[in-house]
Amino acid sequence: MRILIVNVNTTRSLTDAIGRQAGSAASPGTEIVPLTPSFGAESVEGNYESYLAALAVMETVRAYREPFDAVIQAGYGEHGREGLQELLDVPVVDITEAAASTAQFLGRTYSVVTSLDRTVPLIEERLHAAGLSARCASVRASGLPVLALEQDEKAAVDAIAEQAARAVEDDRAEVVCLGCGGMSGLADRVVERTGVPVVDGVTAAVKIAESLVGLGLSTSKVRTYAPPRPKAVLNWPPVAR
Amino acid sequence: MRILIVNVNTTRSLTDAIGRQAGSAASPGTEIVPLTPSFGAESVEGNYESYLAALAVMETVRAYREPFDAVIQAGYGEHGREGLQELLDVPVVDITEAAASTAQFLGRTYSVVTSLDRTVPLIEERLHAAGLSARCASVRASGLPVLALEQDEKAAVDAIAEQAARAVEDDRAEVVCLGCGGMSGLADRVVERTGVPVVDGVTAAVKIAESLVGLGLSTSKVRTYAPPRPKAVLNWPPVAR
Amino acid sequence: MRILIVNVNTTRSLTDAIGRQAGSAASPGTEIVPLTPSFGAESVEGNYESYLAALAVMETVRAYREPFDAVIQAGYGEHGREGLQELLDVPVVDITEAAASTAQFLGRTYSVVTSLDRTVPLIEERLHAAGLSARCASVRASGLPVLALEQDEKAAVDAIAEQAARAVEDDRAEVVCLGCGGMSGLADRVVERTGVPVVDGVTAAVKIAESLVGLGLSTSKVRTYAPPRPKAVLNWPPVAR
Amino acid sequence: MRILIVNVNTTRSLTDAIGRQAGSAASPGTEIVPLTPSFGAESVEGNYESYLAALAVMETVRAYREPFDAVIQAGYGEHGREGLQELLDVPVVDITEAAASTAQFLGRTYSVVTSLDRTVPLIEERLHAAGLSARCASVRASGLPVLALEQDEKAAVDAIAEQAARAVEDDRAEVVCLGCGGMSGLADRVVERTGVPVVDGVTAAVKIAESLVGLGLSTSKVRTYAPPRPKAVLNWPPVAR
Amino acid sequence: MRILIVNVNTTRSLTDAIGRQAGSAASPGTEIVPLTPSFGAESVEGNYESYLAALAVMETVRAYREPFDAVIQAGYGEHGREGLQELLDVPVVDITEAAASTAQFLGRTYSVVTSLDRTVPLIEERLHAAGLSARCASVRASGLPVLALEQDEKAAVDAIAEQAARAVEDDRAEVVCLGCGGMSGLADRVVERTGVPVVDGVTAAVKIAESLVGLGLSTSKVRTYAPPRPKAVLNWPPVAR
Amino acid sequence: MRILIVNVNTTRSLTDAIGRQAGSAASPGTEIVPLTPSFGAESVEGNYESYLAALAVMETVRAYREPFDAVIQAGYGEHGREGLQELLDVPVVDITEAAASTAQFLGRTYSVVTSLDRTVPLIEERLHAAGLSARCASVRASGLPVLALEQDEKAAVDAIAEQAARAVEDDRAEVVCLGCGGMSGLADRVVERTGVPVVDGVTAAVKIAESLVGLGLSTSKVRTYAPPRPKAVLNWPPVAR
Repeated sequence: MRILIVNVNTTRSLTDAIGRQAGSAASPGTEIVPLTPSFGAESVEGNYESYLAALAVMETVRAYREPFDAVIQAGYGEHGREGLQELLDVPVVDITEAAASTAQFLGRTYSVVTSLDRTVPLIEERLHAAGLSARCASVRASGLPVLALEQDEKAAVDAIAEQAARAVEDDRAEVVCLGCGGMSGLADRVVERTGVPVVDGVTAAVKIAESLVGLGLSTSKVRTYAPPRPKAVLNWPPVAR
Repeated sequence: MRILIVNVNTTRSLTDAIGRQAGSAASPGTEIVPLTPSFGAESVEGNYESYLAALAVMETVRAYREPFDAVIQAGYGEHGREGLQELLDVPVVDITEAAASTAQFLGRTYSVVTSLDRTVPLIEERLHAAGLSARCASVRASGLPVLALEQDEKAAVDAIAEQAARAVEDDRAEVVCLGCGGMSGLADRVVERTGVPVVDGVTAAVKIAESLVGLGLSTSKVRTYAPPRPKAVLNWPPVAR
Repeated sequence: MRILIVNVNTTRSLTDAIGRQAGSAASPGTEIVPLTPSFGAESVEGNYESYLAALAVMETVRAYREPFDAVIQAGYGEHGREGLQELLDVPVVDITEAAASTAQFLGRTYSVVTSLDRTVPLIEERLHAAGLSARCASVRASGLPVLALEQDEKAAVDAIAEQAARAVEDDRAEVVCLGCGGMSGLADRVVERTGVPVVDGVTAAVKIAESLVGLGLSTSKVRTYAPPRPKAVLNWPPVAR
Repeated sequence: MRILIVNVNTTRSLTDAIGRQAGSAASPGTEIVPLTPSFGAESVEGNYESYLAALAVMETVRAYREPFDAVIQAGYGEHGREGLQELLDVPVVDITEAAASTAQFLGRTYSVVTSLDRTVPLIEERLHAAGLSARCASVRASGLPVLALEQDEKAAVDAIAEQAARAVEDDRAEVVCLGCGGMSGLADRVVERTGVPVVDGVTAAVKIAESLVGLGLSTSKVRTYAPPRPKAVLNWPPVAR
Repeated sequence: MRILIVNVNTTRSLTDAIGRQAGSAASPGTEIVPLTPSFGAESVEGNYESYLAALAVMETVRAYREPFDAVIQAGYGEHGREGLQELLDVPVVDITEAAASTAQFLGRTYSVVTSLDRTVPLIEERLHAAGLSARCASVRASGLPVLALEQDEKAAVDAIAEQAARAVEDDRAEVVCLGCGGMSGLADRVVERTGVPVVDGVTAAVKIAESLVGLGLSTSKVRTYAPPRPKAVLNWPPVAR
Repeated sequence: MRILIVNVNTTRSLTDAIGRQAGSAASPGTEIVPLTPSFGAESVEGNYESYLAALAVMETVRAYREPFDAVIQAGYGEHGREGLQELLDVPVVDITEAAASTAQFLGRTYSVVTSLDRTVPLIEERLHAAGLSARCASVRASGLPVLALEQDEKAAVDAIAEQAARAVEDDRAEVVCLGCGGMSGLADRVVERTGVPVVDGVTAAVKIAESLVGLGLSTSKVRTYAPPRPKAVLNWPPVAR
């Protein structure tokens, strides 16, 4: 089984980290293929960059030439998953939704701890769109930009753990989701500090993708995610530079 | 990995069918242990029987003497999952929730097709309690009692497929969940007739249980599912007859 | 008119207190019959114990041999009321719902003050299931275990009054419900301290049960609360010890 | 105990009918005082007339010179209950809310059958404002103007029973509320035809008013229903003609 | 184009201020006609006064003898807009709704800052009735009575700005609505202090009224806002004193 | 005042029609500048095409070299408005939201009639995101592709009017919104056939954009729509062909 996992940022070191994290959860026989989008922002933190990433992820997957069995979009709260579902016949899993869906099996409520305050609304909208917001106790921001998570891991763990602890005490969360692809790998240390289960979206998504493929299930094509109708598309995709 | 899957009905042939269905989805190295509750109704179709089953499932699991890694409660819309989560340290997966959670990755909305009209409210409450009702387009009854599903499979497929088709057309469902443990095994034939993905809760639950165990995740013990406080319990469990 | 009021705890002194409280609200000609369940936990504080109580209350009522006109389930946030409604033709009133329903006639919003933090989710779910959560400002825990309410009444009043005051000021509650059968009798003193109406579920339930009987109304049997279908039930009820 | 029950229409024969209906539910020792507003429309069927009735009911109660223990506003879906609660220290019960609150103890869902289609939105808003809309399956119109209910009772029963039956079958209602003060007295015949409990708001309100008085409870004055602040009021109330 | 703007308070200086504020936003060719109700409270701060104002506004508009193109009800959270819509063929705009509707084009969420705490529930209900509450982050009270806003403008700005700042920081509001007709004219100074857009309902309503008239749109008469049916109305309107 | 109105489809004849429609509503002194995106599908009917349009609209506006006062995104239910709000300091108005917001001033509920069934979910999501879904009675599809609306206007009017009539009767809508930029100009004929107000998003958006500019209001920059942070963006925008 081959699973593509697509970073939403164009920073390759993040792609590498996501790939390693995904690989750690993959079953024997599952090949993880990490991809970096061919255009877009080095880090995605807001709507414009997220819309750009949405399209870049779609084009990156469309340009992939080998067969694959599932796609994971490894951005937290980003646009675009619905477009991928239209374009593909294989299952598509967004890590935001994978984390929330998994968290709901572990406690009555969950919170998400993300990077910047400005990404909170995007995550809230994504959870709503996926039907997963009813048990979301809160989405909290650590205040750290995405790229800072890589640069000072100790500060990252501290900032994330503090918000996680406040989610558990003030917002009555019973599970915490790490709300940023770049946080992959910090889960164990946040568990140590908070005492509640911590879900990493990347590993959760790998398991869900494997499960869907294993059960022979894929996206319903009956209405929302039917393939695009054949029609003229102007000046797209862009020519390679 | 050993997963207990507990029937809510005391009819052993249903336990056998559930066990076979679960086994068909289990990964190599996963042992499925089907269990029949030690007391309760031959089929569970309503609140009284469901409350009885809730307790019977809990006691049946408590009486199991070997180690195990996860428990699946194989009843659709039944009470009790929260009690199991208090009593156990390993993950607990309810098939109602497993099916809905899986369906949400496959389409924007899903419907459940269950047995009798009177079980519709129980399923609706269970989906609400699990935070999975926002994308539920409808819960529809086929009109068939649980035990009839075993006796005339062709009639069962017909009745279920008819409601599934109406869910897709009238309620705008994009995925159908088979809403009864006894329906396990009918999924393929309902897919053929409706053209949308059909999720069976038993196999979905096996994959989710395996995933949670594989990720090292289990129930949060911080509040709702903390272990019962030590205290005197009168006349319970009942003496064996 | 004879009204059974069933404690959910197996502690008889609580049954006595509930019976006295119920009696204080009963109209002339109403006989209050307090019952203690024949099995279960000395105090109910969580899901497992609550499921056990649900069944114990049902069996205790089923074993009662005299005619009666209504049943009150005197536990706050406990499971089981729906099962009683299936089994009986007379009205069934849960004190959680009686208190909330009464509070809504007195103010725009109400809060519940209960015993332990872990019972908050059970009460929230019960209010939702009864269609009474929209005007619930908060469910707050005093931190006192059920049995402690009996042992140090002054401490109980203090802890409850403090949470009641915070509900009024911070959560904008306009009425307070005493969220534990064991709190019966404290209402007057909490009114003194907070200045808002305080509703005791036991007395509220007595008035509602009397009203339903007086109006000739009882549970609808059309769907959710239809009697259990005739079927084989294995090993239940348990033999007496 | 003296309970004022105020008609919202200025048609005295309706006041008489409401008074008789209320009297049939009153306990020994309860005096029912039916009142007709001193100004307003002969029948209330829409927002303008309802706002007029709201004020007329308030002024009619303010002009009543004897002591009383509770007030019932006997209009379905009408404005004004909140104003009465500000002006009075005794409990105020709206029949819309009394019926819904009572119905919720009898079934999982209820529907309201009212007079004209244009009053449906008013009833829906009133149920929302009272926190009682979550379990409302539907509000249906019989198509009969309020005054027609008096004139041809057989036609009224037929039209109401038909909508009640559709509510039970199509909307899954388990209880029916008679959604118009003028329908008082038809309950038994609608029960006969539909087989589900039918709640009349007038008798339900009498029982609730008696219960609140009996429990020593009245409106919270802490915020929403605090008495009006002292201030100049211009040209009001109007001079008698 | 002539637009009537009706104060809900009977204090003429407030009418003058509202008229000036409305005039500042009117397009060339728009005539603003400020009206003071012919009866009612000097300031409206609660349900009774609001119901009185609702009727007074309706009668004041009905008594206006010249043609007009639209009506603005210049009270925040007051009753009555639906009645005006029944009585008139021209568009009716409530300033509460105008402000919220405008705010939603400027940010993801908005808060309202109003006068007294007791008016908060009225505003919340009005926003709900208008379908505009989903993005309302909070309704906050400055603690200032309506007439105090006129008397000490500096204190008013301070109290309002403080609550506005807390709405932005604590409630995550991105826009602030000035929730009182009497606050008209303070917007610029609150913007200076908070840095977010501040919407004044009076000017917003003028623009919306002009737009509706310009587009040739008016109230739907199909159901909720159909004209009152012809019928006898007793003792109304009151005779002039 | 200069307002850019950007088509989401790359079909220029649609841009022309939208421009004419916008011009018909513009006040004297308002210059309407219709723009066609520089890349994307000839008609937008689904998620992939909508994401593509979102980015194309943003780049088209960014490439516009003259000053402007507001931007209208003239697509129904399309992605992207939030990105434009981040990139610009002037107000951004989406026609989906303009129509719904306007409709809410005209009736208690509204419905949208759109082109294809597959675009219904996109419109529902957009209305939710804008806080405008609570009073949406339904979103109905006429079954006509976007480009067919241009080709056979009579068939278009028929199909749209039929769905509009069903929305009014079956879904209880009181106002109808024309849910497709390409439907601009059909409003009058749908009014004739249905008798309820019909709102065209393009003209509504022009009035709202003019109003916001006239009131000196623009997008809040405090959180969700703050400008993108400065950072490296790879391979974007694409080189011109």
